[in-house]
Amino acid sequence: MLTVFGDIRSGNCLKVKWLLDKLKRDYRWVETDVMSGATRSTEFLAMNPAGQVPTLVLEDGRALAQSNAIIGWLGEGTDFIPADAYLRAKMYEWMFWEQYSHEPYVAVARFQRAYLGKRAEEIEPRLMKRGHAALARMEAALAGADWLVGDAPSLADLALVAYTRVAPEGGFALEPYPAIRRWIGRVEAAFGIG
Amino acid sequence: MLTVFGDIRSGNCLKVKWLLDKLKRDYRWVETDVMSGATRSTEFLAMNPAGQVPTLVLEDGRALAQSNAIIGWLGEGTDFIPADAYLRAKMYEWMFWEQYSHEPYVAVARFQRAYLGKRAEEIEPRLMKRGHAALARMEAALAGADWLVGDAPSLADLALVAYTRVAPEGGFALEPYPAIRRWIGRVEAAFGIG
Repeated sequence: MLTVFGDIRSGNCLKVKWLLDKLKRDYRWVETDVMSGATRSTEFLAMNPAGQVPTLVLEDGRALAQSNAIIGWLGEGTDFIPADAYLRAKMYEWMFWEQYSHEPYVAVARFQRAYLGKRAEEIEPRLMKRGHAALARMEAALAGADWLVGDAPSLADLALVAYTRVAPEGGFALEPYPAIRRWIGRVEAAFGIG
Repeated sequence: MLTVFGDIRSGNCLKVKWLLDKLKRDYRWVETDVMSGATRSTEFLAMNPAGQVPTLVLEDGRALAQSNAIIGWLGEGTDFIPADAYLRAKMYEWMFWEQYSHEPYVAVARFQRAYLGKRAEEIEPRLMKRGHAALARMEAALAGADWLVGDAPSLADLALVAYTRVAPEGGFALEPYPAIRRWIGRVEAAFGIG
């Protein structure tokens, strides 16, 4: 059986959980508290030297890390990865953009508010500015399209929805982004996210 | 013919150039100066709303962004992408890690030194600390292996070598990392990087 080491509050970890549930895969979830140093133990680092969750462990003991690489592996052969090579590359384009231009702002602001208990005025203005720039880019893309890539839900939608749906917890109100709000509902329905 | 909008000093752009050259693909290179605002023009943003290089434009006008998504697309069907699904996922694991835990420190410190002309003492200590943590992780992985994934050069090596080989320009001396130094030579030879 697959084992997932994950933090249930982390969007990166939830991407993996949601896809496993949607695909009705059997798995064991090992709740791993990143705040308590659990990802810095010798045992954990032997599994994933980057010391990050989520980490997936296969039945044979081999490990796989990085949320978007994990969902890419789990999603192989499903309709959530486009068959067309260009659309598949666009899916990865969004997923790399998510980790470089969205997560470091939208998720980090939320982490500082929700995990570290910082107040709104203690969040670096740069995080808020770049987070809003990421949301504005998504809003423009979704104003004329139901999904980020092609005409069907893909791993790009799953990867982006994880922190976008909880962006308000980081101080990013979603009222100015009506296309994003409608898209969140579509993605939650497509992946059965409760 | 393919068109690449790129900055020849940027490791992210060079990944694309090196792979095109190695695969003997015809392409047109449009040198794009990120410092002059060229990636913020209306024309450029219509192509890539993220306003980043590299951006690849296909013969039919469709665009593709994010260096690692571009090399993933160019590399399809070549030996630089492992046929085994787990190894392919490990390749993407390294490529996502590169963009999240290596580039934002190793490349950003180099950008501040080489593009912005900052002095060593003006670089945020956090950048140096995290950059060295990334290099230490690579050193550990390469101490017992010739390549990052499996027994052959892959896109993971190409993605990681881009900024690792010029890490000294960002103030990261590579003397403490002998396995990395040997690996750089291997990757340069495998991809014909001059």
